[in-house]
Amino acid sequence: MKLSFQHVALIGKYQSPVSEAMAENVRKDLESIAQFLVDQGCSVALEAQTALHTGLTQYAALDAAGIGERCDLGLVVGGDGTMLSIGRQLAPYGIPLVGINQGRLGFVTDIPLNNYQATLTPILHGQFEEDHRPLMHARVIRDGVCVFDAFAMNDVVVNRGATSGMVELRVEVDGRFVANQRADGLIIASPTGSTAYALSAGGPMLHPSIPGWVLVPIAPHTLSNRPIVLADITEIAIEIVSGRDASANFDMQSLASLLHGDRILVKRSEYCVRFLHPCGWSYFDTLRKKLRWNEGGS
Amino acid sequence: MKLSFQHVALIGKYQSPVSEAMAENVRKDLESIAQFLVDQGCSVALEAQTALHTGLTQYAALDAAGIGERCDLGLVVGGDGTMLSIGRQLAPYGIPLVGINQGRLGFVTDIPLNNYQATLTPILHGQFEEDHRPLMHARVIRDGVCVFDAFAMNDVVVNRGATSGMVELRVEVDGRFVANQRADGLIIASPTGSTAYALSAGGPMLHPSIPGWVLVPIAPHTLSNRPIVLADITEIAIEIVSGRDASANFDMQSLASLLHGDRILVKRSEYCVRFLHPCGWSYFDTLRKKLRWNEGGS
Amino acid sequence: MKLSFQHVALIGKYQSPVSEAMAENVRKDLESIAQFLVDQGCSVALEAQTALHTGLTQYAALDAAGIGERCDLGLVVGGDGTMLSIGRQLAPYGIPLVGINQGRLGFVTDIPLNNYQATLTPILHGQFEEDHRPLMHARVIRDGVCVFDAFAMNDVVVNRGATSGMVELRVEVDGRFVANQRADGLIIASPTGSTAYALSAGGPMLHPSIPGWVLVPIAPHTLSNRPIVLADITEIAIEIVSGRDASANFDMQSLASLLHGDRILVKRSEYCVRFLHPCGWSYFDTLRKKLRWNEGGS
Amino acid sequence: MKLSFQHVALIGKYQSPVSEAMAENVRKDLESIAQFLVDQGCSVALEAQTALHTGLTQYAALDAAGIGERCDLGLVVGGDGTMLSIGRQLAPYGIPLVGINQGRLGFVTDIPLNNYQATLTPILHGQFEEDHRPLMHARVIRDGVCVFDAFAMNDVVVNRGATSGMVELRVEVDGRFVANQRADGLIIASPTGSTAYALSAGGPMLHPSIPGWVLVPIAPHTLSNRPIVLADITEIAIEIVSGRDASANFDMQSLASLLHGDRILVKRSEYCVRFLHPCGWSYFDTLRKKLRWNEGGS
Repeated sequence: MKLSFQHVALIGKYQSPVSEAMAENVRKDLESIAQFLVDQGCSVALEAQTALHTGLTQYAALDAAGIGERCDLGLVVGGDGTMLSIGRQLAPYGIPLVGINQGRLGFVTDIPLNNYQATLTPILHGQFEEDHRPLMHARVIRDGVCVFDAFAMNDVVVNRGATSGMVELRVEVDGRFVANQRADGLIIASPTGSTAYALSAGGPMLHPSIPGWVLVPIAPHTLSNRPIVLADITEIAIEIVSGRDASANFDMQSLASLLHGDRILVKRSEYCVRFLHPCGWSYFDTLRKKLRWNEGGS
Repeated sequence: MKLSFQHVALIGKYQSPVSEAMAENVRKDLESIAQFLVDQGCSVALEAQTALHTGLTQYAALDAAGIGERCDLGLVVGGDGTMLSIGRQLAPYGIPLVGINQGRLGFVTDIPLNNYQATLTPILHGQFEEDHRPLMHARVIRDGVCVFDAFAMNDVVVNRGATSGMVELRVEVDGRFVANQRADGLIIASPTGSTAYALSAGGPMLHPSIPGWVLVPIAPHTLSNRPIVLADITEIAIEIVSGRDASANFDMQSLASLLHGDRILVKRSEYCVRFLHPCGWSYFDTLRKKLRWNEGGS
Repeated sequence: MKLSFQHVALIGKYQSPVSEAMAENVRKDLESIAQFLVDQGCSVALEAQTALHTGLTQYAALDAAGIGERCDLGLVVGGDGTMLSIGRQLAPYGIPLVGINQGRLGFVTDIPLNNYQATLTPILHGQFEEDHRPLMHARVIRDGVCVFDAFAMNDVVVNRGATSGMVELRVEVDGRFVANQRADGLIIASPTGSTAYALSAGGPMLHPSIPGWVLVPIAPHTLSNRPIVLADITEIAIEIVSGRDASANFDMQSLASLLHGDRILVKRSEYCVRFLHPCGWSYFDTLRKKLRWNEGGS
Repeated sequence: MKLSFQHVALIGKYQSPVSEAMAENVRKDLESIAQFLVDQGCSVALEAQTALHTGLTQYAALDAAGIGERCDLGLVVGGDGTMLSIGRQLAPYGIPLVGINQGRLGFVTDIPLNNYQATLTPILHGQFEEDHRPLMHARVIRDGVCVFDAFAMNDVVVNRGATSGMVELRVEVDGRFVANQRADGLIIASPTGSTAYALSAGGPMLHPSIPGWVLVPIAPHTLSNRPIVLADITEIAIEIVSGRDASANFDMQSLASLLHGDRILVKRSEYCVRFLHPCGWSYFDTLRKKLRWNEGGS
């Protein structure tokens, strides 16, 4: 059977491993997966940081741009955080991603490491389900100038300062006034991010096929300030009206020290992230397992 | 300026009025609006029940089918309930609707009665914003046979019996298993219905442009059973697994006595409901007023 | 070492068992526990229904009054439901209760069946922690006459009719007006009941030492109608203001067909239920296990 | 009629007023109230900061200790914040407090400025309802040493750093392990504080007569980590397990830079705060007005 993907990039955990033993495990896993890919007839590259942390030198080490230009599949071995991080970087190149988790099921790293071969083989030969996730494009505008520009796959979060009271935020959608909200903060989450921080703050889950973002206020002063789902083709603007030391973060990459009058603008990026799943994959199976539905218990 | 709508149907409150005095008020309001429409050059018809309750006889009395065939605009004078009821019936005819409220702002009856002339005149002449609301098509299948078939604009609700414990419901989406849920019930709400019962049960608001339904469990046994927004092009199936005296309702029209194994199927109707709003109308302005955001208070 | 309890009543599941095999298991478990008690030097009686369902005839069969008068310890083998049911009945007699669960940890049946001997032995000899749970005394007053009178250990629940809209309830505390609430219903839960239905409806947990009830509205129309904890020495009155087919239940024992003007009165009973736990028992350990805190997962 | 209070301290807003005009208003109000008290036969003192901000010099200026020693009633003119602040300081002296609000009803400043004379006169002559609020005594222990010690009337809040992820907190009650919680933070609120920040974060209201605190997790990672009400005679310990830049605050007085291993201990102070209300005052009336229950609207 013909290969659908010839040039595969292997991406490991981004942070350097906690211990020597763990580093050794990660190295072994990546080595074994790389060998498996070679055996299947693929050429293999290693993401540059991964190569550095593992010391694996027999494969080409490529940065995100190199992967985007030379590879036709990204294989992430790690958790959802690793997947989101490389996903943001590779989105402009349109390269699809597959996620292998090392023991703990992720929302987007859904292939278990043990017996990954049986799952990967059909995917490499073109048998998979494809799932496109929109990317948020966020900018911070200060005095008419863009002072920050970032992509986010999960969420854009505006926060009060840690030791100050509520922030007051003015929310607009496509230039239309929505509300002034006083709260600990406000989350704008994609469907992918709706099962992360936004869920903890009381937001709903959005199926990945929903072309929308959910705005979830964090501990809002007005009890009727409830989560609202907005079309992702709109532009959402959040202005800092009052509150000391407000900050924003974009998939947890922080930008501190927002000033009154700063505006955070969020719209859908022209890019999206392509995830490949094994045939028969179901988003609902993952939800059920991650949220421990149907397990008995109270 | 040329009229965009020539044949206007006037629709009043559906239930017979509570008192003589109130009936008299409704009659006067409708009479005044009818006269205004005639003055604008429109021909006017009265919805049959409205004609009956008010005793207004100088205009043609038409049932929903008659309105659908002969009129090009429906003008509802009443609350959201009246609008939803006639909306469901007129959806197959594609006739647009305008809502005048009698004192209390509605989510979809957004023109105040006092000074309605200034707002209606431009609408009659083609200056308006149009807003399409999807319609839910729900069926109940028992032993392979459809035993109930209804449209709903707000929501489809499955309930436990009043004096029994939880129901257990099996939820599937396009044939894929989602979860077995034990709860007081489950709400499937449209964007229009997301600000009604579903909001009370903890659901998010969905902007009318979101092509989705939200599933909101009512008092779910499993605390991680949270609201989920699903694409409205999917078919949602709810099966009664256990629980005595379960029932379902469709925009509050009830169907009692569901049996174990009964399946409630919900999908998007081929029809939608067309609302016309004054130019400059904003969904968010209505939300803000109805939910009393930005009013101070605690 | 001297026995602290000489006359022990064994109480099994109240409902007749689902299957022959299950009945056989229950019978064996009870027989083994009874023999163990005899070996310890106790005299053993069987609750009358338990004797009937199991066919065990070698021990005296006693109803609740008989147990209350002749025994000094009740040993429940079953789930929380069984415990609550016998607890209500035995409360007037002041007899303490111990709960053995058959496989699934309960909030108040906290001794696992396997290896129960090691746990029961010290309890029988006076080494235990005692935990008093207040009992709710509820009455329904119609036209000045008490038409229903019941105890509840978990909760008193007022419900809308299954196929009707919201009920409107007027809440008073010690004769002081609290609010008119429109909702699906209202739960008044004890600390024991706060981890049951009230938790599903969004209520907080109350530690058993809190002398209070929590009022939890079910899907309230007004979003700021939030749970409130009230002192259990007050008298709470709930009046049915409007809504068809409202009903009330008391630990799930139902009273249907409440009428407008009916008042449900709840106050603390003069009795309480005494639970004995093994030394070192911690309410928080049970919470943590039942609610699956600290288990990883999402 | 004999006066019940002879020596009255007047306490105004703590922060310096926003504008000259506002300062002038506050000065006039205080002057008028002081004159009224003198006319009633009371001797009047001014809290020192209040005297400074208003420039009123004809009355003795006293700090909190001076008020506590020489006065038998504190009359607060301002909002809840002012009341809580002076309440904490005066608690050791047992002096009762009355609150006059300047336009906006407070939870604990419940006498409207306009027509305050009619309400104050009976209170001065001994006709009032008294309401005792417990005070939280919080300490921060680092390496076995107490590094911070504070009273709080509303709440003790532990927060994550503004630009870092969740904190992990270990919660113990009287030395018993409750749970490790990962969240944005954790609120421990008194009944008084239960209608403030804790309510925004999803907590229940506690009636002032409840001898308990409520623990409310802020955006908890585990969805079953729900608010829990604990007896206020217990000692609650919160230990910082992980998370950068955690901080704590006590009625919004902040303590930044908590370290891993720091323990925040909260117990009930031996002091409480005494509020006096007009006869017929009802906590529920205040709740209903502040939370806009029974106002119609959605």
